[in-house]
Amino acid sequence: MYEDIKLNIRDVSDFPQKGILFKDITPALKDKRCFGQIIEAFYDIFKNENIDKIAAIESRGYLIGAPLAYKLGCGLVVLRKPGKLPAKTIKEYYELEYGRAALEIHVDAISPNEKILIIDDLIATGGTVEAACKLVTRLGGKIVSAAFLIELEKLGGRQKLKSYTQTISLIKYYGA
Amino acid sequence: MYEDIKLNIRDVSDFPQKGILFKDITPALKDKRCFGQIIEAFYDIFKNENIDKIAAIESRGYLIGAPLAYKLGCGLVVLRKPGKLPAKTIKEYYELEYGRAALEIHVDAISPNEKILIIDDLIATGGTVEAACKLVTRLGGKIVSAAFLIELEKLGGRQKLKSYTQTISLIKYYGA
Repeated sequence: MYEDIKLNIRDVSDFPQKGILFKDITPALKDKRCFGQIIEAFYDIFKNENIDKIAAIESRGYLIGAPLAYKLGCGLVVLRKPGKLPAKTIKEYYELEYGRAALEIHVDAISPNEKILIIDDLIATGGTVEAACKLVTRLGGKIVSAAFLIELEKLGGRQKLKSYTQTISLIKYYGA
Repeated sequence: MYEDIKLNIRDVSDFPQKGILFKDITPALKDKRCFGQIIEAFYDIFKNENIDKIAAIESRGYLIGAPLAYKLGCGLVVLRKPGKLPAKTIKEYYELEYGRAALEIHVDAISPNEKILIIDDLIATGGTVEAACKLVTRLGGKIVSAAFLIELEKLGGRQKLKSYTQTISLIKYYGA
């Protein structure tokens, strides 16, 4: 269905570490037609969901989440790595495919019962977005969905998110 | 002119270091009306410039640059901190208000003579965006403008960019 977009995603071997086949979305973003298709594909999926805010995960999640928030006419909040947000935050740790990390969100980013769409470029093991789900939930947000341009199905991220929300992805790869 | 937007920018003292008064744009992004105003203000300025690509500076630059690229119907390329881009890059170093850093761009991000709009959230001393200008120029891009939500005029960034391009900012602060 999104084969045109898939053609603009580039495999890069051994990035950021040996043995990892990185999915590079930059060719899909620099092509204006493909970039527009990505945003409009998400828009079509979520346009009737009355989303209050998109919560975009730093930093590639911003590249999709920010234009989608604009197109949907909703607010935009950011989930950042520790120490990047200037005001009062809460934090959740998570395990990565290659290390340990944490995400933070401003405590005033989300009001109770707001309908939140979480956006990142890619879901692998789902650790990052699980932390995002915990943060949004701690602030009282209702997660409508977690949506990704790319899903690496073999890594099982979708199963990890089941207790929080549904997972939506435009492009799926079966191998790791 | 953009007083509504200015009201949604928050001062945070001593971030990221003691003595720095940080301009926090997150309140302006989370307010859907204000976020839309920001993107449309830039759109009105650049809609007749036939921009080929927006070059957005990591990571807050993405929050404005990505929706503006979508709205303008142009491509989106990213200027990232070292080691973040997976394919072949070029690099430029620059001095920050609080340290030294570098930016990279994929060598295939821009084709010769493409019309490029550089976007970041804020211009202070202009070091970051000067590095961005050098990178875009090295790839043969023609810089239409460097545009910012916020300009800290006292720090003189606009003067630093004069030999590369014009500087456009929506909101100006005279003090540092």
